[in-house]
Amino acid sequence: MKHFSKSAILAAEKSFRRDFVNSLTGYKSLNLIGTISDVGVSNLAPFSQIIHVGASPPLIGILFRPHTVERHTLENIQKTSYFTLNHVTASFYKEAHHCSARWEGSEFQAVGLEEEYLEGFPAPFVKRSPLKIACELQEIQTLKCNGTELVVGSVEHVFVQESAVGQDGFISLSELGTVSVSGLDEYHVGSRLARLNYAKPGLPVTEM
Amino acid sequence: MKHFSKSAILAAEKSFRRDFVNSLTGYKSLNLIGTISDVGVSNLAPFSQIIHVGASPPLIGILFRPHTVERHTLENIQKTSYFTLNHVTASFYKEAHHCSARWEGSEFQAVGLEEEYLEGFPAPFVKRSPLKIACELQEIQTLKCNGTELVVGSVEHVFVQESAVGQDGFISLSELGTVSVSGLDEYHVGSRLARLNYAKPGLPVTEM
Repeated sequence: MKHFSKSAILAAEKSFRRDFVNSLTGYKSLNLIGTISDVGVSNLAPFSQIIHVGASPPLIGILFRPHTVERHTLENIQKTSYFTLNHVTASFYKEAHHCSARWEGSEFQAVGLEEEYLEGFPAPFVKRSPLKIACELQEIQTLKCNGTELVVGSVEHVFVQESAVGQDGFISLSELGTVSVSGLDEYHVGSRLARLNYAKPGLPVTEM
Repeated sequence: MKHFSKSAILAAEKSFRRDFVNSLTGYKSLNLIGTISDVGVSNLAPFSQIIHVGASPPLIGILFRPHTVERHTLENIQKTSYFTLNHVTASFYKEAHHCSARWEGSEFQAVGLEEEYLEGFPAPFVKRSPLKIACELQEIQTLKCNGTELVVGSVEHVFVQESAVGQDGFISLSELGTVSVSGLDEYHVGSRLARLNYAKPGLPVTEM
């Protein structure tokens, strides 16, 4: 095992530190966030800092870094209160990655992903995505430690490929073909090990 | 595509809603958090709500639900300020899952995962884990929307299997064998698609 102390990490080159620290948390969820500006320009950007905040009511959190190209997304959310989350599959992960470039105008047209509007929701969805979530802004908290901003959205609608939803509510990511990201730029699909039953003390863990 | 409105999600059975909403964000990182109580009882619990907060200085965030069995972990962090994050591999993901049961005493002994102490750091690490992170409490913020608590830790040490660390700082999760979780209880390893170069407008996306 190789040991890196905090001072060694801080003394490393900036690009080394960025890749290293971004890898530490393991596999990250990948979603394209769709928004629209107050003058009607749609925007699409990939995000990997997304967490489940609660189920009742359903809430999802996204951490935004200060001073990055992703600020368009945050500005649109602050102005309109609406955004969408769209799972990415292996068939369009390169287009999703391309959304991170500094495009002028809408990323949808720039990278060739069709946008769609559903159920009168104001923010755009990615038509090809097999799982799309419509969110309304609930709260924003700024972290004291570094100025990053945690945006929490309430889930207003979910559109999901029906074959992936089990009778118990569980959604199969393998069936959807959802992609995950590690570090800043490595992409993966999941290879399923098992689903495990609720764990109890003194009893063996069993597969569902 | 099947449409679930917010009211349909809220009207569903509690277990359906829990599985459904926990699946929405996609693949989640999985880490075992190691802590020790103020009277010296070690604790180990699996967590999937973990996010990268910053690289300079290196910061990692974990979202804790209110009123769950996981409160031992949060109480230990609040009292001692120290915790560890440990990647889980396919060779011990069932033991990791078993840590979520309501054990009396230390989960390390209960599930058969050996603990170790490194570099004088007070919280226990999982000996078998190929990537272990020592964190010191930096801040805790309570989310207004539902009382969940975001704990931010500063990275003090990283111990990682040397073969997985690239010269550029990127850590290969495939090389480590890191496991990811979806929903509450389905486990996966990653199947790598590609690492992509920095995206630029008007130029094709290329593999690294």
